[in-house]
Amino acid sequence: MSQYWTDLVHKLDPYIPGEQPQDQQYVKLNTNENPYPPSPKVTATIDNYNKDHLKLYPDPESTQLRQALAQRFGVQQDNVFVGNGSDEVLAHSFQAFFKQSKPLVFPDLSYSFYPVYCGLYEIESKTIPINEDFSININDFDIDNGGIIIPNPNAPTSMLMPLADIEQLCKNNSSVVIIDEAYIDFGGESAIPLTRKYDNLLVIQTFSKSRSLAGLRLGYAIGHKDLIEGLNRVKDSFNSYPIDSLAQTAAVSSIEDDSYFQQTCQKIVQTREQASEQLTRLGFKVLPSAANFIFACHESRSAQELYSELKKAGVLVRYFNKPRIDNYLRITIGTEQEMQKLIATLSKILQQN
Amino acid sequence: MSQYWTDLVHKLDPYIPGEQPQDQQYVKLNTNENPYPPSPKVTATIDNYNKDHLKLYPDPESTQLRQALAQRFGVQQDNVFVGNGSDEVLAHSFQAFFKQSKPLVFPDLSYSFYPVYCGLYEIESKTIPINEDFSININDFDIDNGGIIIPNPNAPTSMLMPLADIEQLCKNNSSVVIIDEAYIDFGGESAIPLTRKYDNLLVIQTFSKSRSLAGLRLGYAIGHKDLIEGLNRVKDSFNSYPIDSLAQTAAVSSIEDDSYFQQTCQKIVQTREQASEQLTRLGFKVLPSAANFIFACHESRSAQELYSELKKAGVLVRYFNKPRIDNYLRITIGTEQEMQKLIATLSKILQQN
Repeated sequence: MSQYWTDLVHKLDPYIPGEQPQDQQYVKLNTNENPYPPSPKVTATIDNYNKDHLKLYPDPESTQLRQALAQRFGVQQDNVFVGNGSDEVLAHSFQAFFKQSKPLVFPDLSYSFYPVYCGLYEIESKTIPINEDFSININDFDIDNGGIIIPNPNAPTSMLMPLADIEQLCKNNSSVVIIDEAYIDFGGESAIPLTRKYDNLLVIQTFSKSRSLAGLRLGYAIGHKDLIEGLNRVKDSFNSYPIDSLAQTAAVSSIEDDSYFQQTCQKIVQTREQASEQLTRLGFKVLPSAANFIFACHESRSAQELYSELKKAGVLVRYFNKPRIDNYLRITIGTEQEMQKLIATLSKILQQN
Repeated sequence: MSQYWTDLVHKLDPYIPGEQPQDQQYVKLNTNENPYPPSPKVTATIDNYNKDHLKLYPDPESTQLRQALAQRFGVQQDNVFVGNGSDEVLAHSFQAFFKQSKPLVFPDLSYSFYPVYCGLYEIESKTIPINEDFSININDFDIDNGGIIIPNPNAPTSMLMPLADIEQLCKNNSSVVIIDEAYIDFGGESAIPLTRKYDNLLVIQTFSKSRSLAGLRLGYAIGHKDLIEGLNRVKDSFNSYPIDSLAQTAAVSSIEDDSYFQQTCQKIVQTREQASEQLTRLGFKVLPSAANFIFACHESRSAQELYSELKKAGVLVRYFNKPRIDNYLRITIGTEQEMQKLIATLSKILQQN
């Protein structure tokens, strides 16, 4: 508290990210990072980059990176916006599109940063309860609104919504619809092709999960060029150069190495299916996941207790002390070895009383 | 224009950064970059960094970097905030402190991003005309206000304000005073020591100029811990991880190599004095500079014309088509060789009619 803060700052309820212990002593399955390193081409690009050029400002428009993304997704460069992580892209999107006379709507269980952005930009919002089984009934979103945002797959539930539902949403809605696809590369089908048909659809993705580049901070949005222009107007009123030069060039190399990307995504999907099966055998109910994490609750042991016991044993998972999900653990898919360590540790914990 | 934009986005008047041509064919004296590369220790740190770790999120609190800055400036870690370039630090500061019932005040000639932030956060502002000779009369700021921000040295004038003036400002003022010290390392005396005495003083600096790291995007603020906490509340409501892992570790190495930092700053100051003298001989009035750029107008030739002729000849400088300064050129101090190229090119242009 301080007399110098604006009223807004007094009212803010900031987001709390998952723990990032810097000692690297944990099997870290708590922040949905990729267990595999970035493509060797990314490493080579950073190593070969002439560091003397860091004295110069980066390209403020991230032209090469936007070009690479446009080519990958079969859109034009002016359909692509890039930001310093998809959180920054989301923040700008809230400010650019969602402060309307009608409330923004989103699922009651979804990315817990959404209500924080609403606080930051004083956006009125209304949450739509998702079903008991954590599936989303798209008809529930057919209400008067100033915007819709849904993660697909949803977080923290890991569950996928069919593309037909998203199309229905865009068609019936006269405000901006954002699909937050942070986890789409682990088994989902992206809504990006629909952006060519619906000028109110914005799709947001990230390099942090499927491209193993959480440490470099890169996210992007794809949509109609008028939406992108709106984002650029906000960005250019906030920070002309949000993406550093190394990140821009490294990201291009990541996109160029498609086979590495496909391989690592597939490995994670395989490990996820295996781990889900093993957890089920240990007495967990595991929601059907299309993400690089699973959301699971145990038939007899409390999630909070399991979280603590796992942490004591050197395995970090994520626990949300929130209504409806306070008996679930969100577990990132690590390497096979890491998941074996998780399973073994859990087995031991479950054998104790 | 789009029906989907918020009213705010329609009204925004974004900042336009200096040109960043990507072909590197120009002698680039237009965006106040450092002509010298970053410290070799920075390069070594980036080269030696294990790129596999980029799969992990960075430390959201940039602990080591804040520690290094705290140590350098003789303050505590909780007196330090870091951001993705000082523009981001400024943006958060405007939102954290300056939306008040009374207007923010700043000099009519100063960093042209300030009015843009006011637009972004709907902050009322009042500009204070600086003197005819571009000096700042501190008594003019002694009015009822919701905050004060002044660059020191001022941009684009390059002129320094004495520390006693800043102290007077903090003492007489009951709102937050921000001193934007992007250029302080080229001959000015920082107000940072005053932050221990005045809890309403925030000093903002950057790695982009004196530390040759514009390409990495790093800025910071130093002030009373309550001010820093206000900034953290905004940051954690916007983007939990604004500084990428490479930038965090590279910045620490930059701070550790103080002798390189001192050397390059001194070289730039020497080159500046030399160039100022030579420009004076060519018929320019050069304002007394404490920055890594000079602000100059010619006795007979228009600045706009000189800007164009220089650009044609491969030398980029900055021209602002704005009242009071539309006959001035802002010229970044390059290497001695680059400045010789500037002087030679100007001589040639001035000999033509």
